[in-house]
Amino acid sequence: MKSAKNVASLKTVASLAGVSIATVSRVLNGDPVVKDETRLAVQKAIKTSGYHPNRVAQRLRSTVRSKKLIGLLIPDIQNPFYVDVIRGIEEYAYENGSAVVIGNFSQDQKKERLYIDILRSESVDGFIVAPSHGKDQYVESLIEDGYAVVCIDRGLTNLNVDVVKSDNEKGAFNAVEHLIKIGHRRIAHITGDPSIPTTQERIAGYMAAHQQYGLPVDEEIVRGRASNFVSGVEITRELLELPNRPTAIFTANNLLTLGAFETILHRELKIPEDIAVLGFDDVYWATSLNPPLTAVRQHGFEIGQRAIELLYQRIEHPDRLPANVIVKTDLMIRKSCGFKLPSKT
Amino acid sequence: MKSAKNVASLKTVASLAGVSIATVSRVLNGDPVVKDETRLAVQKAIKTSGYHPNRVAQRLRSTVRSKKLIGLLIPDIQNPFYVDVIRGIEEYAYENGSAVVIGNFSQDQKKERLYIDILRSESVDGFIVAPSHGKDQYVESLIEDGYAVVCIDRGLTNLNVDVVKSDNEKGAFNAVEHLIKIGHRRIAHITGDPSIPTTQERIAGYMAAHQQYGLPVDEEIVRGRASNFVSGVEITRELLELPNRPTAIFTANNLLTLGAFETILHRELKIPEDIAVLGFDDVYWATSLNPPLTAVRQHGFEIGQRAIELLYQRIEHPDRLPANVIVKTDLMIRKSCGFKLPSKT
Repeated sequence: MKSAKNVASLKTVASLAGVSIATVSRVLNGDPVVKDETRLAVQKAIKTSGYHPNRVAQRLRSTVRSKKLIGLLIPDIQNPFYVDVIRGIEEYAYENGSAVVIGNFSQDQKKERLYIDILRSESVDGFIVAPSHGKDQYVESLIEDGYAVVCIDRGLTNLNVDVVKSDNEKGAFNAVEHLIKIGHRRIAHITGDPSIPTTQERIAGYMAAHQQYGLPVDEEIVRGRASNFVSGVEITRELLELPNRPTAIFTANNLLTLGAFETILHRELKIPEDIAVLGFDDVYWATSLNPPLTAVRQHGFEIGQRAIELLYQRIEHPDRLPANVIVKTDLMIRKSCGFKLPSKT
Repeated sequence: MKSAKNVASLKTVASLAGVSIATVSRVLNGDPVVKDETRLAVQKAIKTSGYHPNRVAQRLRSTVRSKKLIGLLIPDIQNPFYVDVIRGIEEYAYENGSAVVIGNFSQDQKKERLYIDILRSESVDGFIVAPSHGKDQYVESLIEDGYAVVCIDRGLTNLNVDVVKSDNEKGAFNAVEHLIKIGHRRIAHITGDPSIPTTQERIAGYMAAHQQYGLPVDEEIVRGRASNFVSGVEITRELLELPNRPTAIFTANNLLTLGAFETILHRELKIPEDIAVLGFDDVYWATSLNPPLTAVRQHGFEIGQRAIELLYQRIEHPDRLPANVIVKTDLMIRKSCGFKLPSKT
């Protein structure tokens, strides 16, 4: 479960003490199942071998098995969905005497790699990470090197790994179904970054709802570039300028939603009378918008809690089969879609 | 600049190599002024002594003097002001090949202590921290132990330390002055957590504006508990229920602003016609509110950048005098205050 460098040192300690690496690891983690004489032998071997990563002393002092240092890699700290996830992870960690160090890689793969390297060398006990895309090699290499890793929000295409994420397709389906049921027939979708698996799943839900209700999809009003505010502003502007503009916009995340709101309100159009807005992500400011946002609620806090629970299990049982936890979403109906078709259609 | 444990090990290396601890430190940091033969002697001593904190190998490989691991302790990751600060710190760090690990202590001193302990044991090169209050002992102890520390948003009462923060008093003064100039005479102030120095400074600005314009302060409408959303909701509700309710509310941070907006809109009162709202903090969602928020802009990104620049200087010159950098704020006038007195007064 450690990087190559540390495995070598653990090996030295293990051979000096005449025990397995797993036993050394148990001693380091304060596991109570280790016999006192074994523990003493390991502690002596650690001293003799000069093996002293910074946290060894601390771990030896601790008799709390669950005390861990968790590395958390998130792609965008400005996105409050991840802030909810962080809070869920931290609450659980703190209750278990553990701590979480966060690296924000801004959806930049070079930064992601840097943070992974740093957290490896700081000997974290495990990683919780939102891979930058489905074929994220840095995250794959962590798993191949034997680290405990749990993915949040997005999985990996080529590796079977613990994943905790929202039911994105069903969440998007329910959102678009709601818009169709209240009368919309021309529903735009501002998608997130097309390279992110989450984006694809939400598009799939959008498509499925159209199919189920026998509505054609106009590709012209399904647009996406980055998953950020600026993209929300620009695409909303494009949609509003179409000769046959949509009656509703379904935005794929909360930053896109804000961009849509600003653009629509700036043009002095009314939500939902002139155009309805339904957003994926129900975050802390959603009820302070005017009108309050009808939104797909992801349970970020719970996603964080499930992720760290799985990580603890993975650390204790490295060989168990990976779990795929899909957390359901809820459609929070407020006022940004109204209950009937916008007046201008 | 290191914890006691590391200083001891550095000493061993230094005496083996026959050089000073400072020279060992320079070698570890890849300082180009060290002669090649000295560098080789130090590297040999490191090998002989078995001194190997996790990052030594990395540092030796690096010839970039500025490569650092920075510990960042923030009190509330849900507050987008800190997210801006984090972005400023990270951008600078990344450009210099350094990285930032973040601990979010949720304004909880036990958590703050835990994170400080962890980051100490992970041998970070320096700390950027928003102290939980003016007499924060954990931050004081870091400085006393010789760590490089820069405070953001709040300073320390008993120690002279590098601080980067907004001109809170002037920012609040300008906000209240604006409200007075457009005709308000009964201006409520929803303050943040009274134990935080920032809160006191913003109250001082509120008071100073009243004094300068000869307006009496009604203590009944200056209220504060926590610096969070719930507190914003509760206090706004209390203010709206007063027999002689205020014509404007000045909120002390962005989460309080959201609480005020939600409460006012939920009662179907109009902003600014029924009550004006002016918020401290101009964050990414401020222009998506309806009406867009008139706000005191703090330059969080720049605060982050100044903080990490100071930290680098502190690491390189541990003995220089502490700097106190006050970053000005800007009043962003939008539509949430209107330009004349609300109709109901």
